[in-house]
Amino acid sequence: MFEARLISATILKKILDAIKDLLNEGTFDCSDSGIQLQAMDNSHVSLVSLTLRSDGFDKFRCDRNISMGMNLSSMAKILKCANNDDTVTIKAQDNADTVTFMFESPNHEKVSDYEMKLMNLDQEHLGIPETDYSCVVRMPSMEFARICRDLAQFSESMVICCTKEGVKFSAFGDVGSANVKLAQTSSVDKEDEAVVIEMQEPVTLTFACRYLNAFTKASPLSGQVQLSMSADVPLVVEYRIQDLGHIRYYLAPKIEDDES
Amino acid sequence: MFEARLISATILKKILDAIKDLLNEGTFDCSDSGIQLQAMDNSHVSLVSLTLRSDGFDKFRCDRNISMGMNLSSMAKILKCANNDDTVTIKAQDNADTVTFMFESPNHEKVSDYEMKLMNLDQEHLGIPETDYSCVVRMPSMEFARICRDLAQFSESMVICCTKEGVKFSAFGDVGSANVKLAQTSSVDKEDEAVVIEMQEPVTLTFACRYLNAFTKASPLSGQVQLSMSADVPLVVEYRIQDLGHIRYYLAPKIEDDES
Amino acid sequence: MFEARLISATILKKILDAIKDLLNEGTFDCSDSGIQLQAMDNSHVSLVSLTLRSDGFDKFRCDRNISMGMNLSSMAKILKCANNDDTVTIKAQDNADTVTFMFESPNHEKVSDYEMKLMNLDQEHLGIPETDYSCVVRMPSMEFARICRDLAQFSESMVICCTKEGVKFSAFGDVGSANVKLAQTSSVDKEDEAVVIEMQEPVTLTFACRYLNAFTKASPLSGQVQLSMSADVPLVVEYRIQDLGHIRYYLAPKIEDDES
Repeated sequence: MFEARLISATILKKILDAIKDLLNEGTFDCSDSGIQLQAMDNSHVSLVSLTLRSDGFDKFRCDRNISMGMNLSSMAKILKCANNDDTVTIKAQDNADTVTFMFESPNHEKVSDYEMKLMNLDQEHLGIPETDYSCVVRMPSMEFARICRDLAQFSESMVICCTKEGVKFSAFGDVGSANVKLAQTSSVDKEDEAVVIEMQEPVTLTFACRYLNAFTKASPLSGQVQLSMSADVPLVVEYRIQDLGHIRYYLAPKIEDDES
Repeated sequence: MFEARLISATILKKILDAIKDLLNEGTFDCSDSGIQLQAMDNSHVSLVSLTLRSDGFDKFRCDRNISMGMNLSSMAKILKCANNDDTVTIKAQDNADTVTFMFESPNHEKVSDYEMKLMNLDQEHLGIPETDYSCVVRMPSMEFARICRDLAQFSESMVICCTKEGVKFSAFGDVGSANVKLAQTSSVDKEDEAVVIEMQEPVTLTFACRYLNAFTKASPLSGQVQLSMSADVPLVVEYRIQDLGHIRYYLAPKIEDDES
Repeated sequence: MFEARLISATILKKILDAIKDLLNEGTFDCSDSGIQLQAMDNSHVSLVSLTLRSDGFDKFRCDRNISMGMNLSSMAKILKCANNDDTVTIKAQDNADTVTFMFESPNHEKVSDYEMKLMNLDQEHLGIPETDYSCVVRMPSMEFARICRDLAQFSESMVICCTKEGVKFSAFGDVGSANVKLAQTSSVDKEDEAVVIEMQEPVTLTFACRYLNAFTKASPLSGQVQLSMSADVPLVVEYRIQDLGHIRYYLAPKIEDDES
């Protein structure tokens, strides 16, 4: 028996919004420590890794480890039926071939359940080595989303250049060139608005805008995003999910000689 | 001479929104008791019946009975030109082949008139027998609209099952199965939010989502919708129009053996 | 060296919105008196004339006269990257073949620069004779936009008829006929809401709705629009840009015998 409950359906809707454009389907690995999903995106370029800790749920029970392969666009259809203030419960029997989503209104007078068929998906778990990154940037998630959207107008790829003073995002295309510079924040009233840079050595890396833009679909999950970069290793874009876990996206930099 | 005036154009806009997706054209039958429109939808499956009482208008004059056939998309174009706080007056001469819509701004400094050609439409009035229904459900109109929209994602048809305890809406499709249960409201502060069930005997009936969704375009007209059901007779979906009348939609249940 | 700065990017965004649907490209003529742009629209029917006075900028420096041909959809892409409260600075070297747009956030912690290639555009300046118009109408810009949008539903062209008492906009089409009458305002609390008519002699002129609708894209620039009309000469539609200048559109009336 697997059962996991969240007081608010909003958080689960936002999580699905953060992955459904990258993944058609995904396997949720459930154990008593929580729920994990790890998958390459549909075009096998970037990696998505989601971790939800069991202690972040309002109720969590997982008698036996269970892996549930789900069609994410079907799951999105189902979650669209939940009101934001509904309680959501995910339930499955051991060895079941279906999963049930139950939504309850705050006054308990509306109760909906949606049963969805599970899928058998191939999956290989990639070991992701812990790395000390040359630069770690924390910045407002909406600002990062805005910059990725803006620069994607000018080129398919963008350069992120990080130094002690700040971080610069650049794009070069037919229309012209674009540079957006963010200075490290001296002081902020609201923590979410800070730009903080931890630098061992400066880096300049090039990434495909298309994937960065897909990652920013996670922005509603967190006020801040963290970018971890080192030369020649994948960028990590991380969004914390308050009290519950995090979602991380990995994307390898483009090699200099690449055509954009 | 026919003349009917409403202080606010909003109500007339909402009425047109409630019928224009189902009907390309319609005949407004005007008499000194008010305005009536009755018509099968474009695909001749459901029936729309609109009643506006003369005493609900701010001014109403109808010297001789007159039937005005109108192209409803042309009428919608004209009503789009009215501001919500405009006074609207509908005028026609006896035996005229045009109707005039006049919109006046509250300060009378903007006056618009739109003259539209009338159409000769075949029409047959269906006698709708008064029926004692097995179940009558009153519920928030937005909740009904939400459920119809949600379940239409899963199947072309949905099952409504009504008992003393509550009403259940279900759909079964490739994605899986969906059930939404509403309990009869124990107590509510706002009357519009109540779910009230009057049951003689339980019913379980299947309807095409497409038409139910079209009916819910009337939701802005009323906080509550009333569903009247008996086995083997058409469902009646009724929206009251405050002080003015009502709009009713009739839809026959699907036969069990039907392919959805 | 050319440099012009505005405290708020909003105004420049609105100016571009007012011209980019009519013009694919345009030449900004800069001198120490300010910036001018004059161009026929893409279909060579109407004329757009923009004047921005140097004293309306927060900083303005123009060492030598310079004409900068710009692709307006590229410029629009760049301006989309500015936040509304950003300061915007336009910069070019003498004889440069690029122009730079610099956006600075209020706290100076985000600085973006976009460099765009300039174009060599043919241009001929049309002398526009000063004219005493038979009728000059000042009215709320949003009201004019609304009327143009409404009447365009009914016909490709609309008639503007101006007398001492008021101004009437009419359209005649397959759906029927439409007339919108505005009375001269007797008294208004808000100046922007006034309808004021200065008439030497009445005029009745016909114009293509399509161009009038394009002109109304300038409505966000000003609460009022001014229409100047005389028989057989182009209508002038003028929007003032507070403290900075104005944008004027010129459109010849349709000849009576014209097919609409």
